[in-house]
Amino acid sequence: MAAAEMVEFWRGGLLESTHRGHAVVCDQAGEVVQAWGDPGRVIFPRSSCKMLQALPLLESGAADAAGLSDAHIALSCASHQGAALHVNMASRWLADLGLGEADLRCGSHEPYDRTERDRLILAQEAPCQLHNNCSGKHSGFLTTTRHLKAGPEYVELDHPLQKAIKAATEEVTDETAAGYGIDGCSAPNFAMSVAGLARGMAKFAAADQSGSVRDRAMHRLTRSMAAHPELVAGEGRACTELMRAMGGRVAIKTGAEAVFIAIIPEKKLGIALKIEDGNSRASEAALVAILAQLGVLDAAHPMAQKRLPAPQTNCRGLTVGELRLASGFV
Amino acid sequence: MAAAEMVEFWRGGLLESTHRGHAVVCDQAGEVVQAWGDPGRVIFPRSSCKMLQALPLLESGAADAAGLSDAHIALSCASHQGAALHVNMASRWLADLGLGEADLRCGSHEPYDRTERDRLILAQEAPCQLHNNCSGKHSGFLTTTRHLKAGPEYVELDHPLQKAIKAATEEVTDETAAGYGIDGCSAPNFAMSVAGLARGMAKFAAADQSGSVRDRAMHRLTRSMAAHPELVAGEGRACTELMRAMGGRVAIKTGAEAVFIAIIPEKKLGIALKIEDGNSRASEAALVAILAQLGVLDAAHPMAQKRLPAPQTNCRGLTVGELRLASGFV
Repeated sequence: MAAAEMVEFWRGGLLESTHRGHAVVCDQAGEVVQAWGDPGRVIFPRSSCKMLQALPLLESGAADAAGLSDAHIALSCASHQGAALHVNMASRWLADLGLGEADLRCGSHEPYDRTERDRLILAQEAPCQLHNNCSGKHSGFLTTTRHLKAGPEYVELDHPLQKAIKAATEEVTDETAAGYGIDGCSAPNFAMSVAGLARGMAKFAAADQSGSVRDRAMHRLTRSMAAHPELVAGEGRACTELMRAMGGRVAIKTGAEAVFIAIIPEKKLGIALKIEDGNSRASEAALVAILAQLGVLDAAHPMAQKRLPAPQTNCRGLTVGELRLASGFV
Repeated sequence: MAAAEMVEFWRGGLLESTHRGHAVVCDQAGEVVQAWGDPGRVIFPRSSCKMLQALPLLESGAADAAGLSDAHIALSCASHQGAALHVNMASRWLADLGLGEADLRCGSHEPYDRTERDRLILAQEAPCQLHNNCSGKHSGFLTTTRHLKAGPEYVELDHPLQKAIKAATEEVTDETAAGYGIDGCSAPNFAMSVAGLARGMAKFAAADQSGSVRDRAMHRLTRSMAAHPELVAGEGRACTELMRAMGGRVAIKTGAEAVFIAIIPEKKLGIALKIEDGNSRASEAALVAILAQLGVLDAAHPMAQKRLPAPQTNCRGLTVGELRLASGFV
């Protein structure tokens, strides 16, 4: 099945660029409620599945044994922008475990946060692994690894942690992984269908606080993300601003190459979408459109409008273009 | 006509993302020699048409009156990265005209060049309009404006300069502009078909040094770009590195939203391409493929390989993916 036209970029009254993709809304029974494009398209969920990768942290008892707060749980699901807030929290977390930055296996990159970036340049300091947008996820990985008394190379495919993540992922998505790739942070990322990812998110949405170990883990992960939007991404970012706009009722998470998920507890629905070309302006706009259609996001909220129609201004402040939904989408 | 599948991004042996687009190779008679997707797709050429926007600078006599060198001409066609080289040259150019940074109408943005960016941060200095990637084009605009004794608001649609650019563009592309948009640098950008843009580039390719005023202008623009690749973009950038790889035989120019053109004098061919989704990793890879197929770029050259297959390494240096051509393209 072909990808569906989803988002367009218009300039001067003319269509400049287009984005196609796949999206699925799934209910708690695993049924596809709505779909665009190909629900069976096998994708890499990338960072959108960090709540799946955090399941062993909670289910193994590692989180409780380490006394992690909901804020830690949120940071374990984050693609943060390396602001002082995130870096300091990951640093203290590792120190509390008796570990340090050198135990991380995510690598370093310049932080997306401008204040922290400029601070590093002014201090002539190189970014460290704590600045990596995945340092919270990796702090969670290290917490589980220590709890399991497993070896230090926790991103290896045959490490007990990654085996546990693969098993949990396959159970929650009801799919056998279609393969795996290595992510930007060096962790394995298991391939799944868009429908499988949406199905998994619906299970998170329906998870009961008084249910099984898995249910309780999914419930806490969803609530922790929604309660700490500033930790999941950072100021100015879509995940943070849209979760705030929805008042903590919905958890959402972006992934590289234009993947996005949403977990909607009040409707027991999960959403997954992938833009074919990997452009996140389109995945953000498409998610806003679906959330608005489902009635959980006010399309007129400034944080929604920032993504759709996302008026584009140039460096003299002139409005030069805007995103629009393709006809037939949502 | 639908866009053609052109470039794919693969990770872990699985297809992660795809890019579709339109491309045309045109000969000096204006005939389409090869095409993929829809040659009639109306696009904004964005910065790929800077040599068209520079025609009045040469044809009016403004360039010669101001004593501009081929390096100035190359900078007038540049989307440079605001390195010291570019900023200083634009600054001296304006001073020689008796003008200054405040006369520019391009606006400011942080330079892409890391060294200059870090210098500004360390000096606690804000970027100025000279750092704008279009400051060379705008210095050319000001040169023409002064020569025409026209008013200072040279980016207005009804300014004599923009009228001259529109007329030259329509003549060279053999098309009436399908409309216009405002570009990132605030200048009007005239819409045209991919075939029209390729047709215009073929005329540049075939232009004779001993021909008409227009022929001589097109000839000088092409040679100036190809002779000064470091001015047209900057270190690490596709235009600079690929023109170097082709030893100055071919002029190429990128534009925002994934447009790319090439001018091949030895074959009297012009190329234009647009990736539907605006992702420049795909326009760079597609251009490399077409140039290699035409025999003017060695596909094994490191600067070609950097764009196709463009091995993707993550922040720990692991190779995680690569670009591939879609089957049926080139």
